[in-house]
Amino acid sequence: MSKYQIVFQPSGRRGEVEEGATILQAAQSLGVGIEAACGGAMVCGKCKIIPEFGTFDKLGLSSAKEHISPLSTVEEKILTAEEIHKGVRLACCVHIKGDLVVSVPKKSQSAKQVVLEAGSSRQIAIKPAVKSYFLRLTPPTLEDPMDDQQRLLRALYESTGLGDITLDYTVLCKLSQVLRENNWEVTVTLREDKQEIVRVRGGDYSRKLGIAIDIGTTTLAAYLCDLDTGELLQKASRMNSQIGYGEDILSRVSYATSNPDGLQTLHDIIINDVNELATELTAGIGGTPEDVDEMVLVYNTVMHHLALKLYPGYVGRSPFAPVAAHALDIKARDLGININPAGWVHSLPIEAGFVGADNMAVVIAEEPYNSDKIKLIIDIGTNGEIDLGNRDRLLCTSCATGPALEGAQIKFGMRAAPGAIEGVKIAKETLEPSYKVIGNDTWYPELEVTGALGICGSGIIDVFAALYEAGIVGKSGRINNKLDTPRIRRDENGKWEYVLAYAKETGIGQDIVVTQADIRAIQLAKGAIYVGAEYLLNKYGIDHVDEVILAGAFGSYINKRSALVMGMFPDCDLDNIHAVGNAAGDGARIALLNIDKRHEADEIARKVEFVETAAEPDFQEHFMEAIAIPHAKARFHHVTKQ
Amino acid sequence: MSKYQIVFQPSGRRGEVEEGATILQAAQSLGVGIEAACGGAMVCGKCKIIPEFGTFDKLGLSSAKEHISPLSTVEEKILTAEEIHKGVRLACCVHIKGDLVVSVPKKSQSAKQVVLEAGSSRQIAIKPAVKSYFLRLTPPTLEDPMDDQQRLLRALYESTGLGDITLDYTVLCKLSQVLRENNWEVTVTLREDKQEIVRVRGGDYSRKLGIAIDIGTTTLAAYLCDLDTGELLQKASRMNSQIGYGEDILSRVSYATSNPDGLQTLHDIIINDVNELATELTAGIGGTPEDVDEMVLVYNTVMHHLALKLYPGYVGRSPFAPVAAHALDIKARDLGININPAGWVHSLPIEAGFVGADNMAVVIAEEPYNSDKIKLIIDIGTNGEIDLGNRDRLLCTSCATGPALEGAQIKFGMRAAPGAIEGVKIAKETLEPSYKVIGNDTWYPELEVTGALGICGSGIIDVFAALYEAGIVGKSGRINNKLDTPRIRRDENGKWEYVLAYAKETGIGQDIVVTQADIRAIQLAKGAIYVGAEYLLNKYGIDHVDEVILAGAFGSYINKRSALVMGMFPDCDLDNIHAVGNAAGDGARIALLNIDKRHEADEIARKVEFVETAAEPDFQEHFMEAIAIPHAKARFHHVTKQ
Repeated sequence: MSKYQIVFQPSGRRGEVEEGATILQAAQSLGVGIEAACGGAMVCGKCKIIPEFGTFDKLGLSSAKEHISPLSTVEEKILTAEEIHKGVRLACCVHIKGDLVVSVPKKSQSAKQVVLEAGSSRQIAIKPAVKSYFLRLTPPTLEDPMDDQQRLLRALYESTGLGDITLDYTVLCKLSQVLRENNWEVTVTLREDKQEIVRVRGGDYSRKLGIAIDIGTTTLAAYLCDLDTGELLQKASRMNSQIGYGEDILSRVSYATSNPDGLQTLHDIIINDVNELATELTAGIGGTPEDVDEMVLVYNTVMHHLALKLYPGYVGRSPFAPVAAHALDIKARDLGININPAGWVHSLPIEAGFVGADNMAVVIAEEPYNSDKIKLIIDIGTNGEIDLGNRDRLLCTSCATGPALEGAQIKFGMRAAPGAIEGVKIAKETLEPSYKVIGNDTWYPELEVTGALGICGSGIIDVFAALYEAGIVGKSGRINNKLDTPRIRRDENGKWEYVLAYAKETGIGQDIVVTQADIRAIQLAKGAIYVGAEYLLNKYGIDHVDEVILAGAFGSYINKRSALVMGMFPDCDLDNIHAVGNAAGDGARIALLNIDKRHEADEIARKVEFVETAAEPDFQEHFMEAIAIPHAKARFHHVTKQ
Repeated sequence: MSKYQIVFQPSGRRGEVEEGATILQAAQSLGVGIEAACGGAMVCGKCKIIPEFGTFDKLGLSSAKEHISPLSTVEEKILTAEEIHKGVRLACCVHIKGDLVVSVPKKSQSAKQVVLEAGSSRQIAIKPAVKSYFLRLTPPTLEDPMDDQQRLLRALYESTGLGDITLDYTVLCKLSQVLRENNWEVTVTLREDKQEIVRVRGGDYSRKLGIAIDIGTTTLAAYLCDLDTGELLQKASRMNSQIGYGEDILSRVSYATSNPDGLQTLHDIIINDVNELATELTAGIGGTPEDVDEMVLVYNTVMHHLALKLYPGYVGRSPFAPVAAHALDIKARDLGININPAGWVHSLPIEAGFVGADNMAVVIAEEPYNSDKIKLIIDIGTNGEIDLGNRDRLLCTSCATGPALEGAQIKFGMRAAPGAIEGVKIAKETLEPSYKVIGNDTWYPELEVTGALGICGSGIIDVFAALYEAGIVGKSGRINNKLDTPRIRRDENGKWEYVLAYAKETGIGQDIVVTQADIRAIQLAKGAIYVGAEYLLNKYGIDHVDEVILAGAFGSYINKRSALVMGMFPDCDLDNIHAVGNAAGDGARIALLNIDKRHEADEIARKVEFVETAAEPDFQEHFMEAIAIPHAKARFHHVTKQ
């Protein structure tokens, strides 16, 4: 098998790849971020790149057209005539047959995510899973030659009354040296519910560290905490490096189950992300990951399986049975996580089907089960989870929101990163927009050149509501092409679109538009949430809720009024709609700091009633009503009275 | 750092070594067996080799004297003038400074051990630690989407009533596929006392495999058993590959504690031996090590620490506290042992100090604690362990036998391997010997050329007793030089020696002699055993025992009459002396097949009274009496009446 040199521009990353690999595979193996929402399944058309010919001077290439496979029928279908003329190709379709330079246009580069890390003000009672005890041992003599392990356990018993305790094997390996090097004065760290000593260290050292991580499909948010004080010592976030294997989780399940080492590969990638976060967090306090004794992980059900290396092939298809729904405690070393190898990694329980540990984290953070008021909790992500209820009863469902609300499947959609349009208003009289981009507080048109790169989730909600309120789109979602503005125009295929930003304002050299197809995609997404919430209300036997809680990084950025205008959820007084940020991350921290909350989660997870909406006989009818703007039945007074 | 080519002859093994390494280190790293009883501490003088100069033709060496370090003062002291003249060097003293060919003389090559594997006729009640249950599960549906783990546990509970069971993490990883690929009909293997499922496999498959290994300082003996029938399916043995790091355990402790990765190195070596044995055993029945669910290990206290990677620096020095004396259960994967990664490796308990799990195995095999008669159990190895008692009381001690009885520290001593003199008689009238070597049933002088290479343990006992009975050595152990035979002569230093075999009979081209120093070394060894047994008798308050049991591979080869003649243990009727072979291996198998015997071992280990003989005030006096032949106080009637 021949190997060829490949260089990606503008990053300059280079390396060797095997003949026949696709440019997308080469990019993945070299760590070059190329957008590939479909995970290389040749459907999303996001991975546009331009193979450059004749520029690989050192190798003296005169022509390199033979160095790539010819245009495929997939590319002929997805790419425009103009793109083909310019030499644009899809990275997933081009097979490498020789040395190559590849140019990755700005739009195809996957950008660094902005992650919400709102400092939580929730009160958390501190009751960690690990406790520590300082012990003074009497050294062995010929008269008392008891082994080190029993000597330690005897001292622990004499000092605390705790018996029937074991030592983790890795602790035993170092025990004799730790005892003698510290003159028989040590602190033991006990994982209390396991009755197991997970660390023995010198002196009277009581500080214990823990890490909680919310492993999202797209982003990981990690928190380093002092387990005794509950203090948040450091936080960090990063992209989920599995992105290169598909933006949506089903692409990753497909990768994990259809490649021989697919699951191992994706597992290794996410564990490496976790380890890098642990290293970053502990470096921030001058330590190492090995100092950390406990970890809590939350995630959706698929990331749960991928992170724990549990076969994910069945959780994604009916009847959606996970490998293990209960909370799990797994030794860090068994997962390859680089904290104290004797430490435990706690995974919060899965509720049901697609309602995962991350939603359980939201639930233990919001505690609807301790509330008299009926709360509707919407955790918006690629997969939406909805909980409804109070202390009497708690229901949940999942809805296939799709990635539209996060910017995918939208012509100019992008993730929330600098350059993304995040807020939009449209004047009713002129139909002219004003908008702002992430990274700049000035609104267009004051800022004539905005450098906009696309539209992120909150911008999409805003523009959608603004288009409706300006009368540009009607209740059905159709663009009103009778209006007198050059911003409403036909695209090359004769479909109507609204120009949000002209090429000269942007950073991509082309008009940023909202297409009829975009509007349809958003309607489907918001309709999925609405119909899910509606079924829960029906099931509970109520027709309104006391409080709406929008969770998720996305949830804290969006304009809640816009969300209400578009009919994302049943009508509610604006004052009773709250965006709570990354509640899943907060819940993970809560579980890290308080072991009772873990038990609470495991208990509640079994009590929550899961409602499978797609199985309801009248689902289609309800869903068609739900995609109208706002909902066909919505009273809407809470917005109009503003 | 430069690297050089080195080639060992006659094996032909070659490789690269770093400048400055000794030839012994090079041999160890390339797997070339060179005798090094002291582990490279430059004291035993066994590692004689001859660097060859000018023969490394391909590299065109004209002279290579500069390729090695010059003669050291240690070598000047240990080597004879003749050896130095011949170019003999000590492998531990020569540092490599260039490409080199090294010739390893026959005497310096470490030989393959003959291991006793006497089929045991002991009755073992079968009650293994693991049990298996066949389960039929109902597949999940949308109405019953319970996760796979709970589904399995529910089926187990419904079928057996067993609750509160967990699954090992590695079992969980594969669970969903195993269930579906086998149409929801599986057999679970439960480690009952841990309440943990260690295997789930398809169909109704109840056979479970286990391996017991006696890890000796010199040899490993391994047994593959069917855990349901108790049948011994395969057995295998091999050298302990740590031999290259020192023949005696203290050399290895020294290596493990004075080199940065010393413990890891020795651990890896022994685990590799264990894994190779597991592969060999299971290949014998057409399987793989992964098929094995349970393992039991026994060993002396130092091999215990080295095999489990527990720091061995303190168990070898006063007050001899081990890291962990109780029985241990450690996951196979944590030890790097290649059986079922979810399986457990059980380590029998340490009794005290140098009385290890191997002696506990002997004790549960012999069960003195269930006997009315008082038994004296002597497990002879490099370190001797002695147990004395019956159901009323059980005492034990260890004695620093040293390796003399196994052939080390003896001028022509060698391990029990083909070519070793294993049996000796001396005619009282002529003072002429007859002897036989391992691998040939004919005795000298009928077989004129015996090809003898040296004397092994049983031969040493025999020649010692024969020299005494022929009057060649007296009670004090001194050689009687007044006797008229050319076989009694002075060596080059004027010391007396007895010629057992002339050069022309042997396979080494030189006379095999028994020196005055050899006799002294054997006296010290047998005296150590005698005095240990004597202290136990005193402590128990008796002056004779009902039965003497000689355990250990060595114990079943020796002539028990010779051992009695030489005064190795207190007088006893010959009919009541029994050699039971590798009782430690038998005990390991017993613990593998019956979990109650493990509990029995842990219980007895705490009840056995350890007697520290060296701490007794009159030890020296007793010891001096004990080295006489036979013991100064011995009644000796049981031999003389024969």
